[in-house]
Amino acid sequence: MTRTIVASATREIIIGFDQPFCVIGERINPTGRKKLAAEMVAGNFETVIKDALEQAAAGATMLDVNAGVTAVDPNATEPALLVQTLEIVQNLVDLPLSIDSSVSAAIEAALKVAKGRPLVNSVTGEEEKLEAILPLVKKYNVPVVAISNDETGISMDPDVRFAVAKKIVERCADFGIPAHDVVVDPLVMPIGALGDAGRQVFALLRRLREELKVNTTCGLSNISFGLPHRHGINAAFIPMVIGAGMTSAIMNPCRPQEMEAVRGANVLAGTDRDCTTWIKTYKDYKPGEVHAPAPVQVNAPGDASAGGGRRRGGREARMARG
Amino acid sequence: MTRTIVASATREIIIGFDQPFCVIGERINPTGRKKLAAEMVAGNFETVIKDALEQAAAGATMLDVNAGVTAVDPNATEPALLVQTLEIVQNLVDLPLSIDSSVSAAIEAALKVAKGRPLVNSVTGEEEKLEAILPLVKKYNVPVVAISNDETGISMDPDVRFAVAKKIVERCADFGIPAHDVVVDPLVMPIGALGDAGRQVFALLRRLREELKVNTTCGLSNISFGLPHRHGINAAFIPMVIGAGMTSAIMNPCRPQEMEAVRGANVLAGTDRDCTTWIKTYKDYKPGEVHAPAPVQVNAPGDASAGGGRRRGGREARMARG
Repeated sequence: MTRTIVASATREIIIGFDQPFCVIGERINPTGRKKLAAEMVAGNFETVIKDALEQAAAGATMLDVNAGVTAVDPNATEPALLVQTLEIVQNLVDLPLSIDSSVSAAIEAALKVAKGRPLVNSVTGEEEKLEAILPLVKKYNVPVVAISNDETGISMDPDVRFAVAKKIVERCADFGIPAHDVVVDPLVMPIGALGDAGRQVFALLRRLREELKVNTTCGLSNISFGLPHRHGINAAFIPMVIGAGMTSAIMNPCRPQEMEAVRGANVLAGTDRDCTTWIKTYKDYKPGEVHAPAPVQVNAPGDASAGGGRRRGGREARMARG
Repeated sequence: MTRTIVASATREIIIGFDQPFCVIGERINPTGRKKLAAEMVAGNFETVIKDALEQAAAGATMLDVNAGVTAVDPNATEPALLVQTLEIVQNLVDLPLSIDSSVSAAIEAALKVAKGRPLVNSVTGEEEKLEAILPLVKKYNVPVVAISNDETGISMDPDVRFAVAKKIVERCADFGIPAHDVVVDPLVMPIGALGDAGRQVFALLRRLREELKVNTTCGLSNISFGLPHRHGINAAFIPMVIGAGMTSAIMNPCRPQEMEAVRGANVLAGTDRDCTTWIKTYKDYKPGEVHAPAPVQVNAPGDASAGGGRRRGGREARMARG
């Protein structure tokens, strides 16, 4: 059984086929959020703190932390800022973190200070990336997100994306990194632009699970890009990817409809034993009620639904630009 | 490609792997609805008419019609009442119908007057049922729902349920009924009572599709029986069964959350071409809005979401008793 272990200072989480879906909160990410980027550059972490607490309260399993505030010379600014952000977040909430950067030096700087066992987000099939990231992943003995694109970009052919994923897993093995520490992102295309995007990803997920035996993730809201009532598409997509074998996603946990879909799919996939989380969360649910944000808890994340949240995570903005 | 054709007087619908999910409206069914039963016995079809129009307006693909008003001597009352109910409904809405009865004489009486190509609901693996129903299915050249239980009851072992389904498909072949006219119900157990119920049905659906190459259906809301916020469980279950290959369900189309899940899953399964139905339905969607019932249309069913509806369909009441 494939098990990817991530951990905060005191809390260990397993990502796996027999585990509840791992929700990686996407909000601590200045990509496409000018106001947040400006705040972080100015040393103001109020929004970061708010986002960390809200996501924890909303039931996130892990939090992604990204400090990519600028496209201009990120090597100069990002390592220190990522370290600062990561330290604030890990001192605030007791959730495993995902270190999200395209700057290798920032990833290494963050790995040096991270408590527990963070996830590195990410490596791709690009040679330069593999050579820069995999030695760090090995050195710090952490799991890594492997995105299925390479020097040629993102292929529209799912067989090519599978081949890229396979290549990364093999390269990881060369570095002594086991397949259970590689979490593959098969890349989700917007269904509004590519009508086959859903079927592609479901087929890819089955192959990744059966042939490569790896855990998987994606930038979830990409699927609904450009469509009206995106939460409805996202909420239908979540049970379908879970049914197809996906074990985590980078998403906004502050969206009640999406989190309800995660919890419902966990019940149906048999990973919410005795429906415990479902019953706890919805036992007093009234039809049509507005979900109020759960009270914010420090170092004791709850599982209640929370309102609010922003529309677009960084992964999606990244893809839209890519 | 497996295609089950059903039709009203003028409208043909295909149930199939490459088709939008077929929503069979469950509400015209007095089982467990004492008030409706009393009305129908008294010759009052106001609720039947309202249920037919509301389900059509809410986007039902077909309507199930059941006139089982009594457990006392149904053979005496049901044939005439089913004919009367069916004729009212088929003159009111232009949707294919499902003739739902456990009384063979009622099924035959309804088949004699039904326009188009109705679905017979249902036959089981019980010898007596097979001998009574399959000749009618052959004679009237209609498709039939095959429920995977037999004289021994409903097996908790999904392999046994698959074997029963296979036996029914083979018996149908003996009668000259092709597999594409058999719509198998693998039987959905309540997840609150049987934690493995979801995984059982997903695995069964894949086998039914790949090995028997048949279309499938179920009494959808059984899955959430006994749990709080049942719509949330149903709405997660729908994309999962569609992803696993289910092609229809007997359900309440007047539930906006469930119908949104159907429409979202159709987008993701690639059967809502260019997201046409999704965009038409949700282009003006406002977060948190209450879905008002769509205006009732006669013989021109729309696709808008509608409120209202009752909680339990007859299929579920039947299982709860069985």
